[in-house]
Amino acid sequence: MPDDIKAFVPGPRVHIEGRAGGPLAGLTFAAKDLFDVAGYPTGGGNPDWARSNPVPMRHAWAVQRLLDAGATLIGKTITDEVSLGIVGENAFYGTPFNSRAPDRVPGGSSSGSAAAVAAGQCDTALGTDTGGSVRVPASFCGLYGIRPTHGRLPVTGMMPQAPSSDTTGWLAHDAETFARVASVMLGETIPTAMPARLIVAVDAFAFADPEVVEALQPMVGRLRALVANAREEIMAPAGLTQWARAQRTLQPVEAWATFKDWIECHNPRLAFSVARNLLLGSMISQAECQWAGLVRQEACGRMRYLLPPGTILCMPTTPFPAPKRGEPLSIAGGQRDRLLCLCCHGGLTGVPQVSIPGAAIGGLPIGLSVVGSPGSDAMLVGVAAALRDG
Amino acid sequence: MPDDIKAFVPGPRVHIEGRAGGPLAGLTFAAKDLFDVAGYPTGGGNPDWARSNPVPMRHAWAVQRLLDAGATLIGKTITDEVSLGIVGENAFYGTPFNSRAPDRVPGGSSSGSAAAVAAGQCDTALGTDTGGSVRVPASFCGLYGIRPTHGRLPVTGMMPQAPSSDTTGWLAHDAETFARVASVMLGETIPTAMPARLIVAVDAFAFADPEVVEALQPMVGRLRALVANAREEIMAPAGLTQWARAQRTLQPVEAWATFKDWIECHNPRLAFSVARNLLLGSMISQAECQWAGLVRQEACGRMRYLLPPGTILCMPTTPFPAPKRGEPLSIAGGQRDRLLCLCCHGGLTGVPQVSIPGAAIGGLPIGLSVVGSPGSDAMLVGVAAALRDG
Repeated sequence: MPDDIKAFVPGPRVHIEGRAGGPLAGLTFAAKDLFDVAGYPTGGGNPDWARSNPVPMRHAWAVQRLLDAGATLIGKTITDEVSLGIVGENAFYGTPFNSRAPDRVPGGSSSGSAAAVAAGQCDTALGTDTGGSVRVPASFCGLYGIRPTHGRLPVTGMMPQAPSSDTTGWLAHDAETFARVASVMLGETIPTAMPARLIVAVDAFAFADPEVVEALQPMVGRLRALVANAREEIMAPAGLTQWARAQRTLQPVEAWATFKDWIECHNPRLAFSVARNLLLGSMISQAECQWAGLVRQEACGRMRYLLPPGTILCMPTTPFPAPKRGEPLSIAGGQRDRLLCLCCHGGLTGVPQVSIPGAAIGGLPIGLSVVGSPGSDAMLVGVAAALRDG
Repeated sequence: MPDDIKAFVPGPRVHIEGRAGGPLAGLTFAAKDLFDVAGYPTGGGNPDWARSNPVPMRHAWAVQRLLDAGATLIGKTITDEVSLGIVGENAFYGTPFNSRAPDRVPGGSSSGSAAAVAAGQCDTALGTDTGGSVRVPASFCGLYGIRPTHGRLPVTGMMPQAPSSDTTGWLAHDAETFARVASVMLGETIPTAMPARLIVAVDAFAFADPEVVEALQPMVGRLRALVANAREEIMAPAGLTQWARAQRTLQPVEAWATFKDWIECHNPRLAFSVARNLLLGSMISQAECQWAGLVRQEACGRMRYLLPPGTILCMPTTPFPAPKRGEPLSIAGGQRDRLLCLCCHGGLTGVPQVSIPGAAIGGLPIGLSVVGSPGSDAMLVGVAAALRDG
C-alpha cells in the first residue's frame, strides 16, 4: 500500500486481524508508534528509541482491546518525537499529510493517526494525549478525538512521557464510529441523555482568534439548544496563562525523568526543538515545581467546582486552525505556547474532553470541545453524537 | 574504495589531482567536511547543514593551497557535528576508526581526518581547531598535528564555529610530511635552529593522569636535550580550570551566534549533546561574557610574558589517551571538560601549538605538545622534526 499521506512509520506495514464477531468487526484502526504491537519495534518517532528498547512481546492494552473487539490493525503511525511536539512535524520521518488542509500541519503529537483517519486509510486510530496530542490534531484535521479522564484507561504498553498527564485517546472521522470505539474502550454504553447544564468558557473563547469564535458560533448554538441550562463563565479566573505555565513546568520535569536515562546512555539524535524541550525540563527548579503543584491543586478544585456531574463546559479546542508547514522555530514556538493555553487544563486536572468537528475557517477545520467531570467520558461522546444528529 | 575505517563522508568520493610539479607533488590529502570543495556539498557533519547551504563554487583557501602545491585531494572526512565535539563520535555518520586504538574514539572534531591519516589512506589531512579539534585527535591517534597561530591562515571557505578561536590545521603521520605541508601552508621555510628556552608547564603536567606524565618523560628529556635552557613553571597561575571556564563561555556564545539562524529556520536534527552545547551557549549572560573577556585578556598577557620569541613551552596534549567508544553522556562530558582544560589556552590566547607523537600507555598513543608565541608556528614544526631526529 503506497503511503502518499506519510501517515505510517517506515518499514513493513503491520496487519493484524481483529477477533471475528466482536462489536468493532469490520472496522480498521491504526496505532500511534507509541503503542506496543507484539513483534514490531515501538519507534516513538525517533530513530534512536527502537534500537535502545527491546521489540515488545505483547500488545499494548489499547491495541489488544480494539483487536479483541474485532477491529483490524492496519498500521503504526508517525508521532512527534517521543511525543514531544504539538504541530505534528517530525524531522526524521516527515510531516504527515493533512487531507483537510494540504499546506498545513496535521497537529501532533498523534499526527500520523490523525492523517490516516482524515485520509480514510482507517476508521479509527489510537493516539495519546499528554498536553493536547489528540485534541490538537482532531481540531486541525476535522476529526472527532477524545482525551479520556486521566487514569481511567490502562496505559500498559504505551510509551510514557509525563505519567501524571498521559492518557490513551482515539480519533474517528464520523460520530457513529467514534461512539462505537468509545463504547468498547470505555466499557460503557454511550448515553443518549444530555447533561443538565452547559458552561460556555468565556476566557477560552476570548483567547481564540476572533474568526474561530465566529466559526464555532453555530455549533455552540446547537449545543445550547441540546442542553437546557446554559451560562457563560470564566474557566480559569487566575488565567489560562497561569495554568499553562504550571503545566509547562510539571510536564517537562516528568518528561526529563522519563527520558534522562535513555539520553545519558544513547545521546540520541533529536530535532533541536525536542532536545531543547527536554533540556529545559532538566533545568526547572524544585521551587518552580512546588509552585506548579499548588496551581495544579487549585485548578483541580476549580474544575470540581465548575463541573459537578451533569455539567459540561464548551470551548474552542485550539485558538486557531492548522498553521502552515515548515514555520521557523520561533513562530512554531509561539503557536505551541498558545495551543497549550487552551489544552493545559487536561494534563493539569485530568478532566476528559472530546473535540467535535463541524466548523471551518476558509476551509480549514476547527474543533469545538466539550469538557466534563472526571469519569464523564461517555456522556461527552454522547453529546458529540447528539450534536451531529441535532 | 571501501571505507572500513569510516573516515570519509557518505556519497561519491572526491578526487582532485594536485597541480603537477609542486612542492607537495606525490602527496595525497583529505579535507574535513568543514572545508569547501567546489562542486561538492559541505556537510559539516550534520544531515541538515548541506541541504540548507548552497553547494560551494570555489575551494576553501586551505584546499586550494594544497592543490596548488601539488597534493591530490582524495576525500572529505567525517567531523563531529558542526565541529561541536571533542571525542570524535558522530551520531549520524558513525565514529571514525582509530587504527592505533581500535576500541577507542579517534578524538574530534577532526575525527575522520585523523582516522584517514592514521590508517594510511592519505599522507596528510586538513582539520580545524577551535577548542582542541586538531590537537586531541592528533594525541589520540598518534599523529603530528598543528593548531596554527589564530588569524595567521585564511579561513575562507571553512565553515565557522567560533571565529575568535577558529583555526585551520593539519595532521600527518610522519615528521617529514608534516614539515613539508607546514612549509607550504605557512609559506615559510621550516627552521632547523632550536629555540633558546624551554618551559615545562608543571600545572599542565600535574593535570594529566600520572601514567601520561610518566609516558611523556622520555620525550621531555629529549626536548630538554635539544633546548639549552629549560625551567619548570606554572602556565596558568589562576588555574587551567579558570581559563577553561572562560573559553567555555566565549566559544559557545560565538557558536550560538554562528548557528542560531540555521536552527531558527531548519530546526535541525542534532545529537542531544550537540543541541545542549548550542542551547547552553544561548543562555550565557552578558556579565559572564564580560568576565570571560577579561580572563582572555589576562591569559593573553600571561602567554606574552611566558613566551617571548625564542621560548617554547611543553605540556601533555591531552590529560589521558583515547577513551573507550560509546561512553554514556555524563562520562563523555567529564572527559570533555578535562580535555578542554589542557586545550583552552589555544582558543583563548591564539598561540600556536604542535602535538608530537612518540609516547604510548599500554599501546594507546599520547602526544606531547610544544607551544610558542604567536607567529612561531614554523619553529614549533622544526622542533617536532628535530625531536624525531634527535
